[in-house]
Amino acid sequence: MGWGDLGVFGHPSKETPNLDQMALEGMVLPDFYTANPLCSPSRAALLTGRLPIRNGFYTTNAHARNAYTPQEIVGGIPDSELLLPELLKKTGYRNKIIGKWHLGHRPQYHPLKHGFDEWFGSPNCHFGPYDNKNRPNIPVYKDWEMIGRYYEDFKIDLKTGEANLTQMYLQEALNFIEKQHLNGQPFFLYWAIDATHGPVYASSRFLGTSQRGIYGDAVREIDDSVGKILAYLRHQDIAQNTFVFFTSDNGASLSSGPKEGGCNGPFLCGKHTTFEGGMREPAIAWWPGHIPAGQVSHQLSSVMDLFTTALSLAGLQPPHDRTIDGIDLSPVFLQSRVIDRPIFYYRGNEMMAARVGLYKAHYWTWSNSWAQMEQGVDFCPGQNVSGVTTHEQEEHTKIPLLLHLGRDPGEKYPLSVTSAEYQDAMKIISATVEKHKETLIPGEPQLNMCDLAVMNWSPPGCEKLGKCLTPPPSKPWKCLWTH
Amino acid sequence: MGWGDLGVFGHPSKETPNLDQMALEGMVLPDFYTANPLCSPSRAALLTGRLPIRNGFYTTNAHARNAYTPQEIVGGIPDSELLLPELLKKTGYRNKIIGKWHLGHRPQYHPLKHGFDEWFGSPNCHFGPYDNKNRPNIPVYKDWEMIGRYYEDFKIDLKTGEANLTQMYLQEALNFIEKQHLNGQPFFLYWAIDATHGPVYASSRFLGTSQRGIYGDAVREIDDSVGKILAYLRHQDIAQNTFVFFTSDNGASLSSGPKEGGCNGPFLCGKHTTFEGGMREPAIAWWPGHIPAGQVSHQLSSVMDLFTTALSLAGLQPPHDRTIDGIDLSPVFLQSRVIDRPIFYYRGNEMMAARVGLYKAHYWTWSNSWAQMEQGVDFCPGQNVSGVTTHEQEEHTKIPLLLHLGRDPGEKYPLSVTSAEYQDAMKIISATVEKHKETLIPGEPQLNMCDLAVMNWSPPGCEKLGKCLTPPPSKPWKCLWTH
Repeated sequence: MGWGDLGVFGHPSKETPNLDQMALEGMVLPDFYTANPLCSPSRAALLTGRLPIRNGFYTTNAHARNAYTPQEIVGGIPDSELLLPELLKKTGYRNKIIGKWHLGHRPQYHPLKHGFDEWFGSPNCHFGPYDNKNRPNIPVYKDWEMIGRYYEDFKIDLKTGEANLTQMYLQEALNFIEKQHLNGQPFFLYWAIDATHGPVYASSRFLGTSQRGIYGDAVREIDDSVGKILAYLRHQDIAQNTFVFFTSDNGASLSSGPKEGGCNGPFLCGKHTTFEGGMREPAIAWWPGHIPAGQVSHQLSSVMDLFTTALSLAGLQPPHDRTIDGIDLSPVFLQSRVIDRPIFYYRGNEMMAARVGLYKAHYWTWSNSWAQMEQGVDFCPGQNVSGVTTHEQEEHTKIPLLLHLGRDPGEKYPLSVTSAEYQDAMKIISATVEKHKETLIPGEPQLNMCDLAVMNWSPPGCEKLGKCLTPPPSKPWKCLWTH
Repeated sequence: MGWGDLGVFGHPSKETPNLDQMALEGMVLPDFYTANPLCSPSRAALLTGRLPIRNGFYTTNAHARNAYTPQEIVGGIPDSELLLPELLKKTGYRNKIIGKWHLGHRPQYHPLKHGFDEWFGSPNCHFGPYDNKNRPNIPVYKDWEMIGRYYEDFKIDLKTGEANLTQMYLQEALNFIEKQHLNGQPFFLYWAIDATHGPVYASSRFLGTSQRGIYGDAVREIDDSVGKILAYLRHQDIAQNTFVFFTSDNGASLSSGPKEGGCNGPFLCGKHTTFEGGMREPAIAWWPGHIPAGQVSHQLSSVMDLFTTALSLAGLQPPHDRTIDGIDLSPVFLQSRVIDRPIFYYRGNEMMAARVGLYKAHYWTWSNSWAQMEQGVDFCPGQNVSGVTTHEQEEHTKIPLLLHLGRDPGEKYPLSVTSAEYQDAMKIISATVEKHKETLIPGEPQLNMCDLAVMNWSPPGCEKLGKCLTPPPSKPWKCLWTH
């Protein structure tokens, strides 16, 4: 989902009344970022509070290319990483993940081995359907075991776009909340639904209801579900005890537009890129009685801050034996403070850009390759900013491209290198970047190696269902990442 | 001001708390349009309820080129046109225009000859400063007479951007409202401020306060002023008797970005063009106790509707002896109804596009000329949609370019001509356009002729101020319109 997909963030269809209401009752953060413009590194950053370059969710196979977690990936979340649910567990929280995990699908990466107590959902995206010979269909887990597979037991009709998954995820969420509430049990719910990812689906009640086509139907279903979850918290009278945060894992994918493409508002490009359209996310913090209603904060903030903030709200400290990139936003939410901090924009193993205040310096620019363009894949359709949306990886490390995101949120007008404004701003940004790079120790890259043998052939529980498949012999190779 | 300049319409700076609050208390219209993407035809359409092609605010000097009302223009609003204040006067309204008139500056076009009872403002844009030899500085009027000139008596500091004009316009508005209220006098206030037009200015209290630079400062000052006007209506206890509508006369000018450029949200291009960025306007209707709070209406609507709606709210009928393009929106505001009607997009003398429902058909495409592009003037900076943002005037009258604005608000993906969707939608649009064209009788074009002799040399009242200037001899010529 993109920054501009919500009514409160300016989508002209204004089809998200529940999220808009959530914003009215809480705090909107228009300057909130993901840690990587692609799903699994973003989710790894959220759960570890650390940049993908530290937690291993990147590749060194190619320069500045994002990598994610398809079925053939060998790696996943290292045991050495401490995840938010692992830490919350220590203070008595019960943790559930509903939806897409995306931090590795091999046994050692199972979410219940990394702090979660319950799981309903899948390890990978709902790509497919596959033939179960060359590739298995993606399993759906309930806790430790597979209970079926996408397209087989969990239907997604690619013709009509109908699937009931978001409704199942909603019901799981409500059931989980109810049970914890009845037990007086503190809980952490990671409601990691995989809509609006392509192939885009919605349940029958929402299909065809949006001005925007099926993508809008999916947005409406998510909006409706969030409304139901918040209403349920109020109904159970635990809203005042429950901190809720809504965001997305990367900017809307524009290359799948218009049929399945979202909206990044006035920002440049989309998913995969380190332009604002790829990295800036819709973000709403909600906690009645604690976060005053109707606020806007221009705090520079990140998915990684949710790690540190959640720990803080639970009365815990972040780990001291490693670098944590997330900061504690509770003073922002509760006392409307603004904390000075930079944003680093990574694409794979490269820091592409850095933001300090309203200034953003691009050290590398790249939209997507000419080869992809020739195949009709375009991450910036209809947008072309000379020298900015480059189709080669262009290096600007000596003389960064500097933009003022206040006057120029669309990243169209690089400042003149000879201006005093450029010199003054770059002095501060350079010092910030230097400090960041000096202390950066990259983690072991987890997304380098692929192997057909590691795919979801025989997930735990497959025997009971008669759904075990035979993997091919192991033949690892260096994964190829095109963008 | 552009569609995307308000927080409620998605600007990331979220610096319009008063307009956002107005939206919360009233109705937002995300599908509201101007009648022409340039100031004076748009304002003529607002006050007459008629397309510029009918009321004369266009040119036949060149094809599909917008024209406006600079000092050297000979024409203006014809006596035969019936303006909103003329009609409201009949039922006892007192009418004031504050700000830019732009419907002609020669004596016969004076707003007090066309229904207004009072005026504080100027006949043209605040361009300048001029030398009073080759061109006179623009006069500022109080009612019938000039009381000074821009840059001379009404300061605009082009270096600092400081000018007190919006504050003066605000004070005039509050004074007018107070006086009418004390007299129990129904009133029509046309608060036609000329900010955020370039050269952009703001008063000292707002200068430097926006993330967005001086353009944002001006937006903040307008926002603050609207807040003060609404608060004053409430304070005087006449809010429930006062219908207020906020909108703009054309999309934000992108060619003056980033320093003085606004934001058109996710829409294509800006001012001067008939893409959505040029034609779609921010729009909020407010009438406490009558328009229910917090509504969004996707009614296709237009500045011309304000003519018919205002008449309706005042218990009057629109004139029956001429075509009125504006419809009565009161059922939309008061009963949340949606009325089926098309939108026609004109550029000068040409109908460039038409919208029916969510479909928009481009019959002609043009962003701006190659000649202008070579001079660095670009109406779609950073945007380039092949076959859509053409730099030649391209005709598609036989096979219109069809877009679905729901799935594709950015006008990036023309539908396939061979698709059933194209055929079905075009059947309806073609019939609508045919009907429109069949009955269209263009008015006498008012913006064809220019003459240095007609400029603001000696406006009424100049003698008292010793500010009369001598016009050159009359040498009329056909005005040149570049876009």
